[in-house]
Amino acid sequence: MTAPLLLASNRGPLSYAEDDSGALVGRRGGGGLVSAVQGASVAGDALWVCAALSDADRRAARAADGGLVAPGVQMLDIDPVTFDRAYNGVANSTLWFVAHLLYATASSPAFDARSRREWRAYREYDGAFAAALAEAAEPGASVLVQDYHLALTPRQLRERRPDLRIGHFSHTPWAPPEYFCLLPDDVAREVLVGMLGADAVGFHSRRWADAFARCCVEVLGATYDGEVLEHDGRTTRVSVHPLGVDAAELTARAAEPDVQARLPILRELVGDRQLLLRVDRTELSKNIVRGLEAYRELLRGWPQWRERVVHLAFAYPSRHDLPAYREYTGAVQRVAREVNEEFATEGWLPVHLEVRDDYPRSVAAYALADVLVVNPLRDGMNLVAKEGPVLSGRGLSLVLSRQAGAADELGQWAHLVNPFDVAQTAEALHTALSESAEARTARTAALAQAATALPPAAWLAAQLTALA
Amino acid sequence: MTAPLLLASNRGPLSYAEDDSGALVGRRGGGGLVSAVQGASVAGDALWVCAALSDADRRAARAADGGLVAPGVQMLDIDPVTFDRAYNGVANSTLWFVAHLLYATASSPAFDARSRREWRAYREYDGAFAAALAEAAEPGASVLVQDYHLALTPRQLRERRPDLRIGHFSHTPWAPPEYFCLLPDDVAREVLVGMLGADAVGFHSRRWADAFARCCVEVLGATYDGEVLEHDGRTTRVSVHPLGVDAAELTARAAEPDVQARLPILRELVGDRQLLLRVDRTELSKNIVRGLEAYRELLRGWPQWRERVVHLAFAYPSRHDLPAYREYTGAVQRVAREVNEEFATEGWLPVHLEVRDDYPRSVAAYALADVLVVNPLRDGMNLVAKEGPVLSGRGLSLVLSRQAGAADELGQWAHLVNPFDVAQTAEALHTALSESAEARTARTAALAQAATALPPAAWLAAQLTALA
Repeated sequence: MTAPLLLASNRGPLSYAEDDSGALVGRRGGGGLVSAVQGASVAGDALWVCAALSDADRRAARAADGGLVAPGVQMLDIDPVTFDRAYNGVANSTLWFVAHLLYATASSPAFDARSRREWRAYREYDGAFAAALAEAAEPGASVLVQDYHLALTPRQLRERRPDLRIGHFSHTPWAPPEYFCLLPDDVAREVLVGMLGADAVGFHSRRWADAFARCCVEVLGATYDGEVLEHDGRTTRVSVHPLGVDAAELTARAAEPDVQARLPILRELVGDRQLLLRVDRTELSKNIVRGLEAYRELLRGWPQWRERVVHLAFAYPSRHDLPAYREYTGAVQRVAREVNEEFATEGWLPVHLEVRDDYPRSVAAYALADVLVVNPLRDGMNLVAKEGPVLSGRGLSLVLSRQAGAADELGQWAHLVNPFDVAQTAEALHTALSESAEARTARTAALAQAATALPPAAWLAAQLTALA
Repeated sequence: MTAPLLLASNRGPLSYAEDDSGALVGRRGGGGLVSAVQGASVAGDALWVCAALSDADRRAARAADGGLVAPGVQMLDIDPVTFDRAYNGVANSTLWFVAHLLYATASSPAFDARSRREWRAYREYDGAFAAALAEAAEPGASVLVQDYHLALTPRQLRERRPDLRIGHFSHTPWAPPEYFCLLPDDVAREVLVGMLGADAVGFHSRRWADAFARCCVEVLGATYDGEVLEHDGRTTRVSVHPLGVDAAELTARAAEPDVQARLPILRELVGDRQLLLRVDRTELSKNIVRGLEAYRELLRGWPQWRERVVHLAFAYPSRHDLPAYREYTGAVQRVAREVNEEFATEGWLPVHLEVRDDYPRSVAAYALADVLVVNPLRDGMNLVAKEGPVLSGRGLSLVLSRQAGAADELGQWAHLVNPFDVAQTAEALHTALSESAEARTARTAALAQAATALPPAAWLAAQLTALA
């Protein structure tokens, strides 16, 4: 059985857990990529190849014939040590850090013998995807490989199956060459050559696409005409497909009982104050600490906002396998506590920090928010900035980092900030909170339109078109 | 009294201390810039304007008529709070970190109200230089402004004295625009516009010059033809003048008794082993920790070098006002101790870490070194890499970071490494230690020739020519 269209991503649309009796229970997985691709109308005979992410996933993958845990979903049973080295060691601690300029360079990275082991594991892990895809693809099939976990897969797959049309899409930003070259020389080359194994590579923003092309030019000596990279006798198209959101799907989700049930609770919490909202994973790049610091500077510098604003900060757990992330969560909690200690009054808690993941609550909060703050240090796209305006009930003001890919499309109607500039962010919060209802309504309509310009189905179709 | 040639730099050629009786004692200052400019044959009627760096300096400046502490040296008495904010807050904790890509971006920088105060102090401090230079320059005089402490001075000076020829030289690297834009928007613009107040801006490497020009193009909308930047109706020439060392001066220094007295002590310490040397300030960008880690990987991976190499690591105190630097010094000492604990034998201590500043000892060590390791994360030039080959007695192998400006000129005869790649650095150490005496002699001659291509006097003359 072979497929004419294949998707490959680390995280798939399903994950498994064991119930009290030890039986496997499947559930819909999380993450922006999953909802994006799920939202797309994939042809019925498409195959989605993903990795088993947990012991329960591995049990499910082994129990299923050929790893086909569900129709159209193949889960790869990669051994846990290899997976940990590839996923935590390389993808999340190295490639993610490079893409987001996150390293504290005085101390990290330090590429040593252990890094080399991790890199071999990453190659093996990407190779497992290439092997599975090569096996399952019908002649001339199209294969869409997703994200930084699978940078080597396009070339590995092409070596096995030169007949395929292969695309790669990066959901992260891309680093400028001066920073990308922190990677060991062989690793830097292998990543770029791996991706150039694709016929087309895609990014959410022209900025990331250009940075990738410059890396190929400077590291590999590729040539680039603004559209096509040429290296080693092959050409790869560089495309920009800024993923948007699906208004109908989001609106339907917002109407569901679990969302509706949370509205009165949030309304009571906010009262007659303005609601300043943020919704993030607790991810180093999301810049939650400086966001809270900007709120503190707002309350210090514009005391008229005291007792007139409630800041709901949703900071969901992320990557707790990595010590830096556990420390970051601690820093977020500490600043929130400090702000509350400095400003709280009898009837007013300035910050409500919620670290428990609750998607229906986030959806409900969008409806009520007056100001949404999205201030990542650097972000491939950022879908929160797009979901907010689409789900806004009363109209909202968006304070948005210019370093988010979303700023390309939304910047015109947002209050753009330099994410490192706490003082500027505080001032933008003041401006946003001061905005009239009319201005908010008009801006929100424009934001929502821009946010839905390329919904997941069209985004996926655009990738296939770029391959044709 | 006015001068036809003026130099301006934070640190001047003199500094003062108080002796036991409280009397001021002047002494020659330290730092690469000082020796560079001192080595140059400055015309007798030149004026060097610098800042008072200590309370003793301030006393000396106040006691001297017009701050003229010595013939041709004017010391500015800037109040300590302004100086601390400008020097530690902006120059060393901000502009230096940007230029060297040193930030741990998840937590720093965070530009807040305090940063704004510091920035105003920096503007004031640069303005004090502009005022003093404007006062002292004869009509049409040439003024050479040095380094990142004084980025705003060229424009401030031009506003007061449009008749002057103004040059600015950066001894640091320059950041790519994607990183430079961490700075607050107004600060980023003001730095660039400030430097473009000069008729010519100079850098040690084409890489840094290009990065600066790209920042001007992207941030200011300047145009650049590869030689000249045009912005706001003015033009500024962008030049590359890679500072070298003066062989005659160095050789004379090496012949002095204090150096000679240290040779037998070092010879005894090294014995019949090879001497692996490093000489640095304990500066985050100098990458001392990874250098020691690479040595550890060498001893682990190539056990034949155990007891056959002594690593002398000179790591002199630097910027101990900044907590990150004190922590870094601790990290350096910890890794050195770990290496010794893992490998030391009865008669062999693998690492001798010396944190006490002793320039004659460094000069003596160059004469004896078999391998010199210079592995900065990023470095405007790095003069250690140039002094070593010139002073080498027996010929040495140079392991050199490709991120040092010096790699442009020395790379061909050095073992270039990616400074973040500990494994690659370890391998380069093995290769360098394995090199034959003949190869070392030939390479060292070539290195010494390249290192002395543009000694300080010629370097200064080149800057003046670029102004003409």
